[in-house]
Amino acid sequence: MSLLIVGTVAFDSIQTPFGKIDKTVGGAATYIALSASYFTKKSGIVSVVGDDFPDETMKEFNRRGIDTSGIEVVKGGKSFYWSGSYHTDMNTRDTLVTDLNVLADFDPIVPADYLNADFLMLGNLTPIIQQKVIKQMAKRPKLIVMDTMNFWMEIMPKELAETITMVDVLTINDAEARQLSGEYSLVKAAQKILNMGPKFLIIKKGEHGALLFNKEQVFFAPALPLEDVFDPTGAGDSFAGGFIGYLDKSKDISFDNMKRAIIFGSAIASFCVEKFGIERLVGLTDDELEERVQEFIDLVQFDISLV
Amino acid sequence: MSLLIVGTVAFDSIQTPFGKIDKTVGGAATYIALSASYFTKKSGIVSVVGDDFPDETMKEFNRRGIDTSGIEVVKGGKSFYWSGSYHTDMNTRDTLVTDLNVLADFDPIVPADYLNADFLMLGNLTPIIQQKVIKQMAKRPKLIVMDTMNFWMEIMPKELAETITMVDVLTINDAEARQLSGEYSLVKAAQKILNMGPKFLIIKKGEHGALLFNKEQVFFAPALPLEDVFDPTGAGDSFAGGFIGYLDKSKDISFDNMKRAIIFGSAIASFCVEKFGIERLVGLTDDELEERVQEFIDLVQFDISLV
Repeated sequence: MSLLIVGTVAFDSIQTPFGKIDKTVGGAATYIALSASYFTKKSGIVSVVGDDFPDETMKEFNRRGIDTSGIEVVKGGKSFYWSGSYHTDMNTRDTLVTDLNVLADFDPIVPADYLNADFLMLGNLTPIIQQKVIKQMAKRPKLIVMDTMNFWMEIMPKELAETITMVDVLTINDAEARQLSGEYSLVKAAQKILNMGPKFLIIKKGEHGALLFNKEQVFFAPALPLEDVFDPTGAGDSFAGGFIGYLDKSKDISFDNMKRAIIFGSAIASFCVEKFGIERLVGLTDDELEERVQEFIDLVQFDISLV
Repeated sequence: MSLLIVGTVAFDSIQTPFGKIDKTVGGAATYIALSASYFTKKSGIVSVVGDDFPDETMKEFNRRGIDTSGIEVVKGGKSFYWSGSYHTDMNTRDTLVTDLNVLADFDPIVPADYLNADFLMLGNLTPIIQQKVIKQMAKRPKLIVMDTMNFWMEIMPKELAETITMVDVLTINDAEARQLSGEYSLVKAAQKILNMGPKFLIIKKGEHGALLFNKEQVFFAPALPLEDVFDPTGAGDSFAGGFIGYLDKSKDISFDNMKRAIIFGSAIASFCVEKFGIERLVGLTDDELEERVQEFIDLVQFDISLV
């Protein structure tokens, strides 16, 4: 196993200005794994579901080369369920329901096959679970990427701070970067957060793109201007999945290659938001993906020669 | 005269989270002309001031190759005065005072020397004045760029719509693009606005960069992530000034050259916000400017070869 993904596999009910969908398959690990599968063919998920989770989705994971032996199925249990409603601007949403269900007692066990994975992607979950996974690994992965959110900054800042010291890349959004650092300027926020441990920080700005920082460099990738953003659910996870999937495929964790990985991640995320849930992430073709990446190149490339 | 600039030359009082300044020189044409002067040496302003306007600023304009013979000085009159206060996010502000003063009776007269200008920049003003200037030109300029704002969309939509049909490039911010088109998606908004007349649309997104559209293409330029944005006043006008100044200098109004012009405009705007008012726009060196443009190149360049 080359890429290990930890995160929720779940059901979502989503309402957007364009419509609604009830109890569709979602969860951070679902979006991450599907997106990564366009690059790497050797990934596995560590997660937990109830026996209400559709077998068809497990088969779809397997068809796409995603190992599901690390997904614990709790007999008689119900899968994690989230319901939310997006505002017109599509950048803000209200959470209507969060039912932890089987996630409440989740104690991750990394299967033997995964213990030497080179790439570890920690989807948004309690930092305690994220840490438990890191500690189970037989050897330190080449790259650990961690996603988190404001919720953990508020209810377990100490555990979060500790977990952050153990990872290489942290991904959060702009509001979270400001909250975590206490700095309004994202440049200052980034430097403070990089001093907390991670070597790289990705600040996700939704429709305004993403920034990649290390202590010396900064790279900016725009989001593709789309005719319609149909459903933003999973965009950040798709981005992370494309990012780490590309890095795993290319086996190069330099800053320059991370730039490429961010463009591929942004391309995958731009598909994700075109339809409800994971619908658009299933069955993309290589041609569609290349065409989309070409759109990113066309969007930002300019030719200035300074003498 | 190669570049004619129409707009306010005025006083501003500005309050930001970083401090305040009283009655400093401002106005759209001031920012546009100073920014353009880093590229073109043959520009002139059409505007009006009271005799309270400092002679020293007029001399500074002249030193920078900006002709001021088109700035009418009203004896005993007071210059346009604006006062505003920025919120912590620096993207929103409250207007505290708007005293039109001599601007209330402004009837622009384009001096003979300017009647054949190749480039015309219409800073934000009532669309009626903007139109009057276009109609006075002896020949149609090669490129007319027009800035406007939500205020005119609300109080004189008909006159605004008419003026828009007469220009080549319209510059507005994202909220204004949505308001003018009635479309939330900026891609859809852009296509609707391009159908209203202009061949190019620039949507300014402040700290989130700028988009350039024509009917077939789109280009995105980020704003430079800065440690501190000290005072955003004039950023949009500096951007427009750098944009049209670069086009005038290079005499090339292709989409590809407009991309470059947007990068140079963004670079000038990134200096503007570093200090209060026009302070940072006076006395920039070529080296500083080139260094800043190089930062833009480094910020967005990536190397992906699709086969």
